[in-house]
Amino acid sequence: MIKVGIVGGTGYTGAELLRLLAQHPDARVTVLTSRKEAGLRADALYPHLRGHCESVFEAPDAERLKGCDAVFFATPHGTAMTLAPDLLDAGVRVIDLSADFRLSDPAVFKQWYGLEHASPQWLERAVYGLPEVDRERIREARLVANPGCYPTAVQLGFLPLLEAGLAPRQGLVADCKSGVSGAGREAKLGSLYCEAGDSFKAYGVSGHRHWPEIAQGLGRIAGGPVAVSFVPHLVPMIRGIHATLYVPLAQPLDELQATFERRYADEPFVDVMPAGAHPETRSVRASNLCRIAVHRSADGAHAIVLSVIDNLVKGASGQAVQNMNLMFGLDERSGLLAPPLAP
Amino acid sequence: MIKVGIVGGTGYTGAELLRLLAQHPDARVTVLTSRKEAGLRADALYPHLRGHCESVFEAPDAERLKGCDAVFFATPHGTAMTLAPDLLDAGVRVIDLSADFRLSDPAVFKQWYGLEHASPQWLERAVYGLPEVDRERIREARLVANPGCYPTAVQLGFLPLLEAGLAPRQGLVADCKSGVSGAGREAKLGSLYCEAGDSFKAYGVSGHRHWPEIAQGLGRIAGGPVAVSFVPHLVPMIRGIHATLYVPLAQPLDELQATFERRYADEPFVDVMPAGAHPETRSVRASNLCRIAVHRSADGAHAIVLSVIDNLVKGASGQAVQNMNLMFGLDERSGLLAPPLAP
Amino acid sequence: MIKVGIVGGTGYTGAELLRLLAQHPDARVTVLTSRKEAGLRADALYPHLRGHCESVFEAPDAERLKGCDAVFFATPHGTAMTLAPDLLDAGVRVIDLSADFRLSDPAVFKQWYGLEHASPQWLERAVYGLPEVDRERIREARLVANPGCYPTAVQLGFLPLLEAGLAPRQGLVADCKSGVSGAGREAKLGSLYCEAGDSFKAYGVSGHRHWPEIAQGLGRIAGGPVAVSFVPHLVPMIRGIHATLYVPLAQPLDELQATFERRYADEPFVDVMPAGAHPETRSVRASNLCRIAVHRSADGAHAIVLSVIDNLVKGASGQAVQNMNLMFGLDERSGLLAPPLAP
Amino acid sequence: MIKVGIVGGTGYTGAELLRLLAQHPDARVTVLTSRKEAGLRADALYPHLRGHCESVFEAPDAERLKGCDAVFFATPHGTAMTLAPDLLDAGVRVIDLSADFRLSDPAVFKQWYGLEHASPQWLERAVYGLPEVDRERIREARLVANPGCYPTAVQLGFLPLLEAGLAPRQGLVADCKSGVSGAGREAKLGSLYCEAGDSFKAYGVSGHRHWPEIAQGLGRIAGGPVAVSFVPHLVPMIRGIHATLYVPLAQPLDELQATFERRYADEPFVDVMPAGAHPETRSVRASNLCRIAVHRSADGAHAIVLSVIDNLVKGASGQAVQNMNLMFGLDERSGLLAPPLAP
Repeated sequence: MIKVGIVGGTGYTGAELLRLLAQHPDARVTVLTSRKEAGLRADALYPHLRGHCESVFEAPDAERLKGCDAVFFATPHGTAMTLAPDLLDAGVRVIDLSADFRLSDPAVFKQWYGLEHASPQWLERAVYGLPEVDRERIREARLVANPGCYPTAVQLGFLPLLEAGLAPRQGLVADCKSGVSGAGREAKLGSLYCEAGDSFKAYGVSGHRHWPEIAQGLGRIAGGPVAVSFVPHLVPMIRGIHATLYVPLAQPLDELQATFERRYADEPFVDVMPAGAHPETRSVRASNLCRIAVHRSADGAHAIVLSVIDNLVKGASGQAVQNMNLMFGLDERSGLLAPPLAP
Repeated sequence: MIKVGIVGGTGYTGAELLRLLAQHPDARVTVLTSRKEAGLRADALYPHLRGHCESVFEAPDAERLKGCDAVFFATPHGTAMTLAPDLLDAGVRVIDLSADFRLSDPAVFKQWYGLEHASPQWLERAVYGLPEVDRERIREARLVANPGCYPTAVQLGFLPLLEAGLAPRQGLVADCKSGVSGAGREAKLGSLYCEAGDSFKAYGVSGHRHWPEIAQGLGRIAGGPVAVSFVPHLVPMIRGIHATLYVPLAQPLDELQATFERRYADEPFVDVMPAGAHPETRSVRASNLCRIAVHRSADGAHAIVLSVIDNLVKGASGQAVQNMNLMFGLDERSGLLAPPLAP
Repeated sequence: MIKVGIVGGTGYTGAELLRLLAQHPDARVTVLTSRKEAGLRADALYPHLRGHCESVFEAPDAERLKGCDAVFFATPHGTAMTLAPDLLDAGVRVIDLSADFRLSDPAVFKQWYGLEHASPQWLERAVYGLPEVDRERIREARLVANPGCYPTAVQLGFLPLLEAGLAPRQGLVADCKSGVSGAGREAKLGSLYCEAGDSFKAYGVSGHRHWPEIAQGLGRIAGGPVAVSFVPHLVPMIRGIHATLYVPLAQPLDELQATFERRYADEPFVDVMPAGAHPETRSVRASNLCRIAVHRSADGAHAIVLSVIDNLVKGASGQAVQNMNLMFGLDERSGLLAPPLAP
Repeated sequence: MIKVGIVGGTGYTGAELLRLLAQHPDARVTVLTSRKEAGLRADALYPHLRGHCESVFEAPDAERLKGCDAVFFATPHGTAMTLAPDLLDAGVRVIDLSADFRLSDPAVFKQWYGLEHASPQWLERAVYGLPEVDRERIREARLVANPGCYPTAVQLGFLPLLEAGLAPRQGLVADCKSGVSGAGREAKLGSLYCEAGDSFKAYGVSGHRHWPEIAQGLGRIAGGPVAVSFVPHLVPMIRGIHATLYVPLAQPLDELQATFERRYADEPFVDVMPAGAHPETRSVRASNLCRIAVHRSADGAHAIVLSVIDNLVKGASGQAVQNMNLMFGLDERSGLLAPPLAP
């Protein structure tokens, strides 16, 4: 039984880790931290977990965390890069759901997150936790940088075409839409029901923190720099990301569908839909799946890839558990087998 | 006082015409038809109009309609092209909210709507009712083809760049999102609360009826064929369209914001937002406005235009009233001056 | 032209005052205060008002406010009772949308709001601003205490039966449901999209601040103490209140429908629906109407009254404008005539 | 392994049975019928089940169904009463999710459902499947009438007080609110996103089919006729029922909380919340739980019980699986252990 610690358990990704781990046969949460809620039972904050979770929030304590086999950071950026190295040195394996170890270049990190990186020595040892790209290195990793939600949906969508050399390295467009839970469980005006409800908008058009992560990831897949324009939008729904990806086609391509099916044939959490399908975000709600469909535009100019995930699962906590499973030699799907919830 | 007839008043665009005309100082609905609901008061079907509308549905009758000055068709495609010519010949001016007279080539119409066009002779006399493009011809028109909702948002967004020669005529992308009212007031599975709610999806990716209308409109604006990839999406909200438009830039453009501001300086219903803005669909809810913002993507490869309308107003009934105002020499803004509703 | 001041214009009721007054023929906002947003244009905070409102927030200044004919307080409780007396003494007429002057007994105020009342001398001079109950006194009032949202819907629903002596003075139940905007435009966890969305709950069951206001109002109407159990609930919608009222019936009553129709025959903002109707909150969205239907329960034990309002209009800013109209001798309906918005 | 048949698998309760049974260790769906969709894979209709369900719809065939151990009817009323007897005679055990066998008096059935009962001989042998009331008889039942969604929430809420003689048998009020999925997966105008969204209404106030079922159930619990006024409402959310129950109190009761806790101490699917709690429907989303809290009203006149369930699970398919577990001697919780989903 893997002893799990969760640092920063009061947000949506923390709660989702508790929900998923409650169903995991080989892992058990032994430490759950929150400075602010120390002393409170988790199911007092999250009544849906009553009967499924006995954990009590406690103030973060390095010694307690060092008693864990794996520690998840479900904290805002800036925390893991400070606290993780000590745990790593003690042999704890760390999965960071924040952005701290996603960008390999500390200068880029500083540019987008406004902080000097506190542990640049760990940046190159961190493994970017997208199993479909780097499964073998994740198995051996001591520190996994769990990908962002948008970057997960976007990379999995472009990947087969970039790997196969069927996509150009410029002119790509990623028009992405996210449910409001992507903004976290924070009392912000823009996340209010009456601000986000019954409306739709783009945000961060001129620059969003997930853009350099996407560009870095696509560059690795393609083996060279990739230019992609990325626009995130806010959808009046709770969970879900829908990425609509545009790949300029110099000439007609017959092999779109087959390229995707072949690439993901053995992936447990990527479902290539039949030709002509339009995946809905609800079809992956509560699950670790990414569903993908590929089309050609009516004007023939673009291949269009539709890629959907649940931002709190494959886009955060589910992928983190998937990474934990790999790191500990378990069945990659452990704890992640429940069907999605619809309607 | 203009005597107005509405053919097919039971759908959302019909109800919206009634709501807008109830506030119009110079127009009065004298005939309201519905074969199915003949005999029913409109406010029995639409209780929000109690106290604002005395109309009673009646079966469509040509003689009754010929007594009107203006007749709006708020019918599915296929009806107006059959019934309008007789009214036109009698001197009635017609504003068709359906697709029947939007596509100038009857072969294209047949390809996308599956019907032989019943009145090809009127196709070339119909004026496409986008006042920002063709105000003067609308004033004189006997038959106005009121634009589709997506085409309105998309054309107004691309227009300043195409007119100014700042956009290429290929590689354009229109990623569009619509509220569910765009699907009409029809009992369809896909429009159910539990099917469209708390979820997001694309539809019609490989071909949607608004695509040829968009291509035709952009071609006219640009003075030659324009290739545009168009993907519509369904948003769990009631009203609103958000078009996110990608224009490949061969080189940096300083004049984006100024180009838009200049082009729309005198347009009563187009609001160019300040640089950096992200218009929300709710900011135009219930109003005839189109709000637009323009950005440059972080990778510098695209100008990105954000264009929002209320699909039932500027995307349908409001634009129809705007066209009626032009056709009858009224203040273009009559009946359309109430502020949008938010939250 | 009435010169209007609004104190505390950054919340939803403030924004709604601006929207309604923008359509008012005889009133003009000349002072708009917000300590926090001083210097900002109102339409920068509320883009839906672009083109309809030139106001700029300024820090509250007594001299500036004294130049107004009428001042609305759209502030949290505790502000108006401190600032209003000075304005009143200067001859300004005040409409307080907060709770400060609603409860006539300062001890009850203190019990429920936790504050010593700062202006008890004005409590008895304040007129409770429910025009359907007290129109004539409102006309003469210098200070109007604008009713709460729940109390408006509940009082208008019980009123005809209590006045006619057809309802007992005990055993009443008011089961009420409100959209999320009732909680105001404040960054609170419970008002987040992901907390209030796709869910339903009761709150404040053992005691809510609107309960003593309801009890006081019903007592006045009935001419003696009335016992009512009141439970508010939070609905995942933006605007709207639905009150479901249960009146124990000792014996069958034939006169339910007629009693309501008679009582409200001349009220411009109360619409008694036909027998058998079920008013929807959206049927009054954006309007100052209260729609009411009355039923008998299947077990015959209760008369059941359904009463709906838009909490931001008839439940707050619209009723405030209605009160202003009365106070200044205008047509009571001025600025409040636009039809509701549906869908 | 229990061989399961599902008759009428295309609605929401059918899909939910498939979702729950996909996680059941001891049951397997071997026959899934739909006249309309015969030949279609279930996961083509329900893409969220891709990878979790291999079933293919087939036309209903008695011989095929007789090969099952248990058959669920997820059909509209009128079907099970015709088809079930033949299966029952063949030894198949039947769980009917429709209303056909819920009302023990065929005259009452006819009054509310408009049909002569086709199998009155089975009415008295059918066991009403509310395990918290009748667990032992369910174990032995050949035919279980699975309770309606509202009746489940209402009966579980009133039960402890009625059983303990702490509630009167008249003057009860059940004010109930349901998500839209309660209306089923049928293309009906009133269930459209744009009709049910961002609005709230009551329906069926003067009489709803669940009222006689509630009255019958409460009568059995209380040991004599119970008068209850029942008002259902439609909430703009997908899943969930919230029952707000009013019990007139002749005198103060100290034992409310303890009465509930004692009664449900051993119930696996009823969670009595701490004193002062307000259960949210989302706290039981996707789970078979009923969460209950009990309060006293501010005026002291009523005990107020709040009872929430997921209408598709404890209100339909989950309770059906719970009943199957009891009938086949399995752990009552089999297949029903996944935690609820929030946010």
